[in-house]
Formats: sequence, structure tokens, C-alpha cells
Amino acid sequence: MAVSKKIKKMMESASWIRKMFEQGARLKELHGPDKVCDFSLGNPNIEPPLSFTEALKEVAGREPGQHGYMPNAGYPHVRSKVAEFLCREQKIKITGDHLVMTCGAGGAMNVALKAILDPGDRVLVNLPYFVEYRFYVDNHGGILDITPCREDMDIDVELMEARITDRTAAVIVNSPNNPSGRVYPEETIRVLVEMLEHRSREIGRPIYLISDEPYRKIVYDGIEVPSIFPLYKNSIIISSYSKDLSIPGERIGWLAVNPEADDADELVGGVILANRILGFVNAPALMQHIVARLQGECVDIEEYKRKRDKLCAILEEAGYKFLKPEGAFYLFPRAPGGDDVAFVNRLQKELILTVPGSGFGMPGYFRIAYCVDDAVIERSREGFKRAIEAVG
Amino acid sequence: MAVSKKIKKMMESASWIRKMFEQGARLKELHGPDKVCDFSLGNPNIEPPLSFTEALKEVAGREPGQHGYMPNAGYPHVRSKVAEFLCREQKIKITGDHLVMTCGAGGAMNVALKAILDPGDRVLVNLPYFVEYRFYVDNHGGILDITPCREDMDIDVELMEARITDRTAAVIVNSPNNPSGRVYPEETIRVLVEMLEHRSREIGRPIYLISDEPYRKIVYDGIEVPSIFPLYKNSIIISSYSKDLSIPGERIGWLAVNPEADDADELVGGVILANRILGFVNAPALMQHIVARLQGECVDIEEYKRKRDKLCAILEEAGYKFLKPEGAFYLFPRAPGGDDVAFVNRLQKELILTVPGSGFGMPGYFRIAYCVDDAVIERSREGFKRAIEAVG
Repeated sequence: MAVSKKIKKMMESASWIRKMFEQGARLKELHGPDKVCDFSLGNPNIEPPLSFTEALKEVAGREPGQHGYMPNAGYPHVRSKVAEFLCREQKIKITGDHLVMTCGAGGAMNVALKAILDPGDRVLVNLPYFVEYRFYVDNHGGILDITPCREDMDIDVELMEARITDRTAAVIVNSPNNPSGRVYPEETIRVLVEMLEHRSREIGRPIYLISDEPYRKIVYDGIEVPSIFPLYKNSIIISSYSKDLSIPGERIGWLAVNPEADDADELVGGVILANRILGFVNAPALMQHIVARLQGECVDIEEYKRKRDKLCAILEEAGYKFLKPEGAFYLFPRAPGGDDVAFVNRLQKELILTVPGSGFGMPGYFRIAYCVDDAVIERSREGFKRAIEAVG
Repeated sequence: MAVSKKIKKMMESASWIRKMFEQGARLKELHGPDKVCDFSLGNPNIEPPLSFTEALKEVAGREPGQHGYMPNAGYPHVRSKVAEFLCREQKIKITGDHLVMTCGAGGAMNVALKAILDPGDRVLVNLPYFVEYRFYVDNHGGILDITPCREDMDIDVELMEARITDRTAAVIVNSPNNPSGRVYPEETIRVLVEMLEHRSREIGRPIYLISDEPYRKIVYDGIEVPSIFPLYKNSIIISSYSKDLSIPGERIGWLAVNPEADDADELVGGVILANRILGFVNAPALMQHIVARLQGECVDIEEYKRKRDKLCAILEEAGYKFLKPEGAFYLFPRAPGGDDVAFVNRLQKELILTVPGSGFGMPGYFRIAYCVDDAVIERSREGFKRAIEAVG
């Protein structure tokens, strides 16, 4: 065996997902990629805004040393710019001192967990959840606890409370949610933080609320994502430019520590140390320079809205059961017949690639990533219809 | 306490190093940065080659989707380009299938260790060593074992052999070495791999040889760094473009698995999975496109050679004892008086910033990073003289 026991086990347990992807790749090879409707990946099809490319050209060769090392937390001026924008966007008070630039939101989540988790500490997340959280928590010796959600896919705070133990170090909230597209309403967050305050006192340690919000700007119908900072002091916000600017391959994001948190400065120090020693060292230099100039910029959300509405119409017409997403670019319908893996396989026969809900802790559902060309959505109409009819 | 017990302890134990850096920053503020000779950081002062900036401008806005996700291992065409270059540079046989693009060498080392280490596994490295290795090994549940080096700072294979146990999973070799500037000769590597082959058989598991070579291209006086692939099958090479192209802030590097390794494909699979689940996800997209075009390019080594020779002359004249570095851009002299921390403090009085050998596991020495302007080296002459005279 060339790899560790744990990695070997992970490789084996991931094999059914890999098999599905391989099957998808085979379908593309067999029928041509333009015949296959690939809804399996959250890889935005919208190009970055023009301002991004312009900034790239402008920054190239501009300042001596601009590709060199900087403090592990990122350039001070970039941290300040992000903080200033957060003050406006979320109506909170924060400076660059409580901000750390990171290698994407995935990097940010790992440095946050590395900073706070002792071995055996537990982290709570509600269904459905981004599957990588399980690995991220495990990387740093923690254990992920999953709580069921309500029928409408909102957080069930009562069920969550029941799972809190004296080892619970953090709760992760991902809103807008991948895969459900749900934005948790402010009322839910209020009930959640009241519970966390109460239970933190009871167990004698702060339970951190980590808000993972890479989709914050991708919301529809005038909905707003509540900010957690004014509601709960022991909180951390994580985000990235992957979706705002359609640059997920560039690995640029940030982490913000609530300045009101207990020992906020120590927590920031721990995050910066974790960013260094996990081997990230710092967020990519050039992208830091660029995003500093593009605070608040975002791809055209109307495009995603159009895609959402188009796909909703197709699914509704065919008789699928689903909640209309409020944000992100995912739909998470019930799998007709109840068996998500079987139904996703059935869709593959129609050359439609999706991901079973089992991959998000929720069998019986499946995820459709609609960040694809309109033509792909259009082409999927008959396949979606035939697949649900076949199941009956 | 806002952070985990382990991170808290790390923050405290790092505090004397931080104190030194803070003192350095204070000196710069007090006397002006142009009065302070800062030799404390391995941050190249040479600008990236013109071809880098040109590639950046050319690539900007070129291809749709070029900032999106790609396979976690990196773009297939980039992996192929790097492999082709390695075949020429190191006269080995490798294809892109055994190459993974990473977030710098620090990222590569972490994914390699994550892929192979079970909890309690041990990793060997010889003195003096890059201090981050201790954290990297610990991140993944491993334990770092340190072996003394020979008087000439070459690897002492006999002493290393004595520390191998049935839990030894890997040996890290860093050549050209940070901080010593030593390039381990082929003869040493041959003796080392013979020992590793023998002991691997004895303990019934492969002991991986991980060659960390970000300074491979920065060597002087016609010296060559031997390639480990033809000498030892269970080997991994790690490198980055940080020093070749003077872009350490961009976090772009790679990891190569010896195609002859036992279960090489499983090892590559484990590395790719680790790259994903540690939150790196993939190496920055734009930088992948750029380095693919710049294979073999390197900043002008003659500049570093000139700096080395200038600094060697100054130190020699002042009476310091040191080995002339064969590569990298560090000098690692004996600390006059024997107490490295005291001597580094004494140098600070001369407005000269260096790092105590204790930071590399070797008290009694200190590191001078000479990747600085020639004027800084010139200005340090009298300070170096006065400091050694003061110690007597």
C-alpha cells in the first residue's frame, strides 16, 4: 500500500462517485460533449467581468516585488480594502486587522478549523451539506456531526441543540446553501445564535459560528443574506471571489474574525499561523492585488436567474418536486422513485449528468448545477421528462 | 482561550522568533528601512524575468474558462509540459500522469505527507533543516526525527540509519539546502538510498525519499544537483517556481511521483485526493497557464553568485567561519561566541537582521539570506566587523 490507511479508505469510499464521473466522461466521449447535459459541477459558465481582465492587464509588471512574499495574512492594503467593503455590504464594523486573505474558501475553512480544533472536538452542520466539510473537519482531528433539516430545508435549531455536547467547538452555516439553494432567514439565525449563546455558557466554552458564504452575492428576487456579526460575537465569516468573479480556479478568498469575539486577536493570530503552517503560506499575490480593485464587483446575477427560471419551468412541467432556490446556482429536487443513485443513473441514460443527494448527506434528492449554457438547459427538457416518466 | 491547545502552544513557542522580527520592524521604523540591513527573509530581490510579465499580459483574457476549476491535479497540458521539462532537466522518464500541480512547494509537501502518513508515523530529516517541516509533519499526525549532520553539513547516513524505526515512513532531503546552501553530492545520495533500500526491506514498508528542491536551479560554480529518481524508486520530487521565477507570493509548484515507485498510481491518486481535501483544491489556474510557457526559465543566477561572493569576502575579512554555499541564497556561519540568539541580537545593534540557527534546529549558527540589493550587502560590512570584534 502506497498511501496511508485513512487515505486508502477515503479513496475507496469515494469510488462510487468517481465511477459516476467516469461514466459521465465516457458518455461525453461516446456521444460528443455537446450531446451530454453536464449539470454535475459547480464550475460557473459565466466569464469573469471585463473589469477583471482589465485589472489583470493593468497590474502585470506594475510594481517591483508584487509577486514576492508578503505577510502571511496578506497585503495590509488588500485586507483594508476587503474590510471597508464588508463594512458597507454587511453594515458591520471591521478593519483589516481582523481579516486574513486565503487560498479560496476551502483554504479559509481549513485554517479556521486548524486554529480552533483540539483532537476530538466536534463541529455541527445541518443537512444538506457541502461534502468537503467532512474532510476539512477530519483533517484537524475533529468530528463532524450532522443534523437533519426541516421539510423546507431550513435549519432545525431544536434538533441541532440536541446534538451539542461539551466538545462542540463550532457550527458551520452555509447560506446560500450548496446544494439546496436555500438562504436561511434572519429569524432562523436569531433563534440559532440564542441557542448557541445559551449552550456556550452552559458548556463553558465559546461555540464558534462559522458562516461559509461564497454565494452571498448570488441571490434572487431581492432576498438578502443576514450578516452574522451583529447577531453573534464568536463568529467567523468565510468567503471567496470564486463565484462573484467566476474565478474558482484562482483560489482567492478571505476569512474575517468578528472583532467582538472573545480573544479576537488571539483567534486572528491562530488563523494566520494555521495559514502559514498548513502550507498555504499566503493567498496568491497577484490575485490579492486584483481583487483589491474589484471590491463589490460581481458577474451578472440576472443570467443565473434566467437559468434558474428556465430549469424550474422544465422541472415543474415534468412533475419534479423541489423548492425554488433563493440563491447559489443549484437545484435540489426529490429523486422520483426515492432512490437518488438509481435516478441519477437513469438520467445518465438521457445523457444528463447530476449528483446524487447521498453526496450531500441526503439520499432521496439529487443536485442539478445550473451554471451552464442556456442551450444545455434547453436540451435537457425531454430527458428530464422521460426519466421521471420511466420511474412512474 | 480562542484557539486550540496545540496552536496556543505553537504561538507561544514561536514568540521569541516573533519578538526578533518585531524588533527588526521597530529598528526599520526608528532608523528608516534604508538604514537597516535586512537579511532575515528568503524573499528574492531579483524581479521575475521579462518573459513572465509578457506571458501574464498575453494570457490575460485569452481563453474562456481559463480561471475556472480544472482537475484537482492541474491542467493536463500543464502537467505534460512540466513532465517534458523534467525529462530533459533530470534525464528521467516521466509523463504528466505522475505530476500534480500544487500551491507552491509548501502545499506540495503537505499533500505528500497527508497522502502517506498514518498517525504516529515518523519522518526523518537531517540538520540543519527548514523549520516548517516540523509543522508540516505534525499537521498529518506524524513525528519529525532530526539527525545531526557531518562537520561539512553533508548528510550523516550512519546517524540517520540509527534513527530509523519500523514507523519511519519517509526521509526528507532538501538540496540545495536552506539554510546551509549545501548541495548533497551524488555519492552521499547513493549511500543514503542503499541504506533506505536495505532498511525498507527490513521493516517491510517503503521508506519514501522526498526531495524538496525549490533551489535546484540556483547553484554556483558548475555544480549539479543529482536526480533522485534514477537512484531510488520510492521517491517524490517537490519543487516550485518561487525562486526560479522570483514569484514566491504566487504559490505555484509541483509534485512528481517516481513512475517506478511501488503502487505509483495509487500514490498519485492519494496525493490528488489530499490536494483536494486539504482545501488547496488546485494550484492557481492563471499561474499554471503561465509556468507552462516558461519551463526552464530562471532569473539570472550570476546575480546571486555576485552577492554570495561579495558577502563571503566581507565575512571572511571580518573573521567569520563558514562554508561557501554551493546553492540557494543563504549563508550559515558559526555564531561568534557560540550563542546564536545573543549574536543575532548583537547584530541587530548594528542594524543587521539575521535568523538564529536555533530556528533551523542548529544553535551556534546563524542564517544570512543574501537575496537582497548589493547595496545592503555593501552597507553591512562594518556592522559585521564590529559585531564579531565585540564578541572577541
